[in-house]
Amino acid sequence: MKTDNKPIKVIPLGGLEAIGMNITAYEFEDSIIVVDCGLAFPDDEMLGIDLVIPDITYLKENADKVKGLVITHGHEDHIGAIPYILREINMPIYATKLTMGLIENKLKEHNLMKTTRRKVVRHGQSINLGCFRIEFIKVNHSIADSAALAIYSPAGIIVHTGDFKIDYTPLFGQTMDLSRFAEIGKKGVLALLSDSTNAERPGYTMSEKVVARKFDSLFSEHSKRRIIIATFASNVDRVHQIILTAHKYKRKVVVEGRSMVNVINTAVELGYMEIPENTLIDVEQMKNYTDEQLVLITTGSQGETMAALSRMAASVHKKISIQPNDVIIFSSNPIPGNEKAVSKIINELYMKGAEVIFQDTHVSGHACQEELKLLYALTKPKYAVPLHGEYRHRKTNAGLAMEMGVPKENVFMLSSGDVLELSGEYGRKAGRVPAQGVFVDGLGVGDVGNIVLRDRQHLSQNGLLIIVVTLEKFSNQLVAGPDIVSRGFVYVRESETLMEDARQVVKEALIECLSKNVTDWGKIKNTIKDSLGEFLWKRTKRNPMILPIITEV
Amino acid sequence: MKTDNKPIKVIPLGGLEAIGMNITAYEFEDSIIVVDCGLAFPDDEMLGIDLVIPDITYLKENADKVKGLVITHGHEDHIGAIPYILREINMPIYATKLTMGLIENKLKEHNLMKTTRRKVVRHGQSINLGCFRIEFIKVNHSIADSAALAIYSPAGIIVHTGDFKIDYTPLFGQTMDLSRFAEIGKKGVLALLSDSTNAERPGYTMSEKVVARKFDSLFSEHSKRRIIIATFASNVDRVHQIILTAHKYKRKVVVEGRSMVNVINTAVELGYMEIPENTLIDVEQMKNYTDEQLVLITTGSQGETMAALSRMAASVHKKISIQPNDVIIFSSNPIPGNEKAVSKIINELYMKGAEVIFQDTHVSGHACQEELKLLYALTKPKYAVPLHGEYRHRKTNAGLAMEMGVPKENVFMLSSGDVLELSGEYGRKAGRVPAQGVFVDGLGVGDVGNIVLRDRQHLSQNGLLIIVVTLEKFSNQLVAGPDIVSRGFVYVRESETLMEDARQVVKEALIECLSKNVTDWGKIKNTIKDSLGEFLWKRTKRNPMILPIITEV
Repeated sequence: MKTDNKPIKVIPLGGLEAIGMNITAYEFEDSIIVVDCGLAFPDDEMLGIDLVIPDITYLKENADKVKGLVITHGHEDHIGAIPYILREINMPIYATKLTMGLIENKLKEHNLMKTTRRKVVRHGQSINLGCFRIEFIKVNHSIADSAALAIYSPAGIIVHTGDFKIDYTPLFGQTMDLSRFAEIGKKGVLALLSDSTNAERPGYTMSEKVVARKFDSLFSEHSKRRIIIATFASNVDRVHQIILTAHKYKRKVVVEGRSMVNVINTAVELGYMEIPENTLIDVEQMKNYTDEQLVLITTGSQGETMAALSRMAASVHKKISIQPNDVIIFSSNPIPGNEKAVSKIINELYMKGAEVIFQDTHVSGHACQEELKLLYALTKPKYAVPLHGEYRHRKTNAGLAMEMGVPKENVFMLSSGDVLELSGEYGRKAGRVPAQGVFVDGLGVGDVGNIVLRDRQHLSQNGLLIIVVTLEKFSNQLVAGPDIVSRGFVYVRESETLMEDARQVVKEALIECLSKNVTDWGKIKNTIKDSLGEFLWKRTKRNPMILPIITEV
Repeated sequence: MKTDNKPIKVIPLGGLEAIGMNITAYEFEDSIIVVDCGLAFPDDEMLGIDLVIPDITYLKENADKVKGLVITHGHEDHIGAIPYILREINMPIYATKLTMGLIENKLKEHNLMKTTRRKVVRHGQSINLGCFRIEFIKVNHSIADSAALAIYSPAGIIVHTGDFKIDYTPLFGQTMDLSRFAEIGKKGVLALLSDSTNAERPGYTMSEKVVARKFDSLFSEHSKRRIIIATFASNVDRVHQIILTAHKYKRKVVVEGRSMVNVINTAVELGYMEIPENTLIDVEQMKNYTDEQLVLITTGSQGETMAALSRMAASVHKKISIQPNDVIIFSSNPIPGNEKAVSKIINELYMKGAEVIFQDTHVSGHACQEELKLLYALTKPKYAVPLHGEYRHRKTNAGLAMEMGVPKENVFMLSSGDVLELSGEYGRKAGRVPAQGVFVDGLGVGDVGNIVLRDRQHLSQNGLLIIVVTLEKFSNQLVAGPDIVSRGFVYVRESETLMEDARQVVKEALIECLSKNVTDWGKIKNTIKDSLGEFLWKRTKRNPMILPIITEV
């Protein structure tokens, strides 16, 4: 095994507290490479936030060391933050062809094509960045052209799986390059950083071929009905297969949803999809075909409010309405947190008389326990670092590593921001760097923080009351008010007594204050808040935000 | 079959749009009976709402006809709204013993014991209410003492299953009284209203005995560790079984969580639970026992923030802290919508080094497809009305009814508020009554409606800006302001330029207005809103609430 006294630093800058925002820095002396640069979607309590992107303070502080950005595959949680990060720190990007195509769509949108160096890498090929050599290795996943990375460093070889599964019978392209993992294992692997998403699931993840067979039987069974299939836009192979199945059953295909159209265009352009001639038609042409001649492929399988399927289900889609003769296939599982949104759409589709199918029409893109064990068996790593997944998933993956013979003290459960040092001699956590997510709200990046979110939370629960008071500048006497304006508290027209009583409470508190010659506005405001807050709690058991506003004339 | 020209009216006043808030009125001439009176928990978009209760306008308008409230079982979605409804319309309550015990807990809390007539009914017993006779029939469910109802009316017999499953090997008590359903089927059943919750699941729901066996093997396997079990407080039999298993393995039991303690007390008092002597101990006594001598039974299996388990997981429980030697068993499945909250707690427990078990430790309380079919086979109803469940579940249940020979035109998919008329000659929807849920927020019942919720939604997404302007009364000249106060919009200290620019925009709009001698405050406010809104959208792509406040002196 190639080792050295000096350790390599492994620094996950995101992705370990929740699904999403994957980004890991590898550092050895004066070289840093960054693997993936994803975004996360906000939690329920992040009110009004659009996206969360990684904090790259550490990279900016070490900008001279940063050699490049290496991407494993084209999912949003691995590429979504690239445009935001590039604005802060320019670096060249390395990725396989389809992945780069999807990244370039983003760069174009953010006007970053000219300033960003890009290099397409093939599976099996290596690149040199500083003191690192990085080899791209074929893996299977729910998006085509995914890669694991073998990172050759002076401290040893690190295998970084990215998201993966083993598909022995993929619809298109090759099986994961298991032999290469075995060869690298023979050379000696310092550490394996592997995908934990499905670590709680025993057995193997099914092949994509299973879904293809199911589609075939559903098309055959429902030959008289219009078929609508909702799936992930990024699952290029599945979309490809649906189109081929449609062609086989002599149906035309309509594609709905912006992201679906974009991904298909990129995939076709780069040679990842061969669409039989005269199969795709425009939505406008649908009227020329009968139900049995049509298939719709659409976004919205996660119940996203604005996606095409949701708009169809809610009868607000301009061009497509759901009919009793439709059969709608969800080729997806709800991502945790989306269950209710998906169920809402299923209900709406049923209410329109359509049939809905969601059993056996999806397989995961992530490795289950036996696949993870196989990777440990092939690579025989000295250290194991579970990546990708919530703590529970990573912890279970850590357990698998130990079962496979990695000593307990060599299995590291990291948090985002931990700095892990690994060498042939030792492995240890050595400090932390900033790694809180940065909130994106509209055009603002990082201008909404916890104080603002706490206010939004408070406002969302009980609304607010604004108390307006005007005082005379010199005498400090009340010249107007108190007036109360409320929003999100009660329906005022039906609560006139309550609001009038509240006004009286404020007035009394205010007069008391002024009669005592209190001139400190802070004190006056607090008195108003306290007395009104107490009154409202007693009367309503609610706790709205109270904002006293004093003006003087 | 006993029929009549006159139809019986079936009026679901809630429970058909989502899980929860079950309440159905049956009306024949001058008699109305109400079956169940549950609450619903708020959806995510019902910001700040605590509960949703049924709208009983129709019952109030026909108060002289209402003969009584008949309850199938003691779950919140069947009894939770009783205290609220009794305040509007007094009626006697009929229920089995345990169900009545749980209802009485609520009545005591709301000080309604004295004014409410109550009658405990045994399985097999009937009561007469107006022109109805109602027979209570034993069913199995995830709470003891559940009953289906056979409602004998001049128009025919209606079988109302309530929530049920068939458990051939219940831990305590009897199997569902299938023979009685068969007998009633022989007499002729006008309509079957059945539980649709699990209608999408093929096969049979497992017996509670399966869980008991699993507990036994887990206790045996983890003999050296402290065991913590989270389950539903209301699942009396399961809690009972856990206590007996603890006793068998010579462990003491600590009960945590207010609702858990309440239910156990009621169950013990009424004879539904026999607890071996010296098995229950107080939380204070825990220190006298080793890990292997202890079992904790706790609330919080749904990830509820304030429940005991959540507090332990978050290290804010005053008396119990999670240790690496703990094994925590979730004897529950996440109810749809709670998946992320449950996952959060599992992660926290893992982070504390504990082991978490959630596989094969729960069975559902609702009938699957084969059980539903059996009920159709036994009762052979003329009409079928799927109850309990989202549209998708009820629609699937409707499909089962048709498979079992109920003619398509005799299967009714209702919405809450529909009035269904059924007689030996015909079945038809005949009008609607009010059946929107009523929001409870703190002490307020019905004082928060859609306008208030829309404001809360708006505030929660982008916060608000308050613009304060003081004008001189006669000259209409600006004497103070404009000042801007914001909450939940941006972190103001880091956005000084933005806020100052915003102030300038308002000032210019205002001066323009005043110079044109606009005196209508509504117009001035709209001008401020429009100009500031446009400015903010351009600069931030956000859309906060803007509240101009004008005072005059």
